[in-house]
Amino acid sequence: MDINDFIISKADIINEALTIYLPAKEEKPKALHQAMGYSVLAGGKRLRPVLTLMVANLLFKKKEEEVLPAAIAIELIHNYSLIHDDLPCMDDDDYRRGKLTNHKVFGEGIAVLAGDALLTYAFELITQLEGDFTPKQVIKVTKEVAKGAGHQGMIGGQGADIVAEGETVSEDELEYIHNHKTGALLKTAVRVGAILGGANNEELTALTTYAHNIGLSFQIIDDILDIVGDEEKLGKDVGSDIDRDKATFPAIYGLEESKRMAKDKIQEAKKILSIFGDDAEPLIELADYIVDREY
Amino acid sequence: MDINDFIISKADIINEALTIYLPAKEEKPKALHQAMGYSVLAGGKRLRPVLTLMVANLLFKKKEEEVLPAAIAIELIHNYSLIHDDLPCMDDDDYRRGKLTNHKVFGEGIAVLAGDALLTYAFELITQLEGDFTPKQVIKVTKEVAKGAGHQGMIGGQGADIVAEGETVSEDELEYIHNHKTGALLKTAVRVGAILGGANNEELTALTTYAHNIGLSFQIIDDILDIVGDEEKLGKDVGSDIDRDKATFPAIYGLEESKRMAKDKIQEAKKILSIFGDDAEPLIELADYIVDREY
Repeated sequence: MDINDFIISKADIINEALTIYLPAKEEKPKALHQAMGYSVLAGGKRLRPVLTLMVANLLFKKKEEEVLPAAIAIELIHNYSLIHDDLPCMDDDDYRRGKLTNHKVFGEGIAVLAGDALLTYAFELITQLEGDFTPKQVIKVTKEVAKGAGHQGMIGGQGADIVAEGETVSEDELEYIHNHKTGALLKTAVRVGAILGGANNEELTALTTYAHNIGLSFQIIDDILDIVGDEEKLGKDVGSDIDRDKATFPAIYGLEESKRMAKDKIQEAKKILSIFGDDAEPLIELADYIVDREY
Repeated sequence: MDINDFIISKADIINEALTIYLPAKEEKPKALHQAMGYSVLAGGKRLRPVLTLMVANLLFKKKEEEVLPAAIAIELIHNYSLIHDDLPCMDDDDYRRGKLTNHKVFGEGIAVLAGDALLTYAFELITQLEGDFTPKQVIKVTKEVAKGAGHQGMIGGQGADIVAEGETVSEDELEYIHNHKTGALLKTAVRVGAILGGANNEELTALTTYAHNIGLSFQIIDDILDIVGDEEKLGKDVGSDIDRDKATFPAIYGLEESKRMAKDKIQEAKKILSIFGDDAEPLIELADYIVDREY
């Protein structure tokens, strides 16, 4: 199966699970539940939860359903961060995935709360792993997700990003922002799959390095797409980073050097997976897929 | 010891623990860490974590430090909800506890993120209970907190509250909002203490009823204080509920009937604790303390 079709088939599993796990729209409090579902079900590649499933599959051959609560939790956290990120007080974006952003439809107050609710619900979902995994694994996943999404992880990166807006940013600072803002949760997605798959230390370290490199590459390419991408394909405003004078790789290194850096990171990511032999083929193809997104 | 002094002595334990558990202000990302600490360390009665300590103490005689990660987690969640609640898109409050609100000092973007970070960090803290409690207890606490703070709990109440603003609200709807917005997290604080204290089903049920009643009473009195309270003592704007045409008990039942309802709920709360005998004395006094706050 071609990697595009492979990812779509995994994303379909996630999409189906999302409709099951999300609270029903008709259920009270309705506005909140509608807002939660609106953004989460608006589509997206489901890259993070797909990574969780793929890594768990690489290490053990259990049923995918067992890993789903954790994979869905990570996707909910990703979506909450987008809802808050789109707010007028943050990136002030009107469109996301070709649809109006959450606050444009439901108002800012409900959008803030919908984000809060998705984040909180993610931790409730993780406790549903109990039964299929040991209590210690469940706690380890909780800790991993809280750290990856928290003040030293994703939110830390967003905080540094806001402060950096309009400032001259050093190379180190730019890497900090990107490693945390995008990288942290991708890393969490991979590590949670590894923890649930029963990875040993060597395997966990290798997969963490893989995640680190594809995460950074992913963000570099996002920066590039913001400059040269096709507005219609991306489903969001292009050039908005420049408008806001944001810290980006092309702004510091230029377009060509940024492209080269993204490719280098992907090479590193692929190399580290050699310890898994042929079983790592899907993860290797996924790395190529990330760097080959349309410029 | 008089109940005021008793609560202050417990709150001191919480305040000291907060300074230890919160990330250092000097640590990167600085703005985010400063914003997290600013609101959390601005004071407050620490009613929720004090309840957690008191209930755990009622049921077992372990060292208080062991319960602290859970108590602190609940206080962080309470504080994050206040930060988001004060935002211009929500209640739009400039002052809280006599100090400028978070977004007034750090800007709205960082205020949103500081709230997000506190919520996320709360779940990381809960995992630190491991070692002193069984893994199953840790997962049970995680689930309890996620539900109490989530879309069917505290956030659900806030969502319903926003929608109700400016609308005519039924008695049922008002009770739903208050039970969830304020009641849910108070109940969680009590139930987490009970879970960690090893409560049996009868004890857990009694303590849940206690929490339900003091929670509702607490919110009724908050509504009353918003009308007749002393602005200086409360440290926040008085009359802001009326200004925003918010659903409140006095608005529906009138002032006198609301006072009577608050007192009735407290009587019910005290009665249910009889199964614990004299050991429940501090919790009984705490119930009186809540209803005797200055009108």
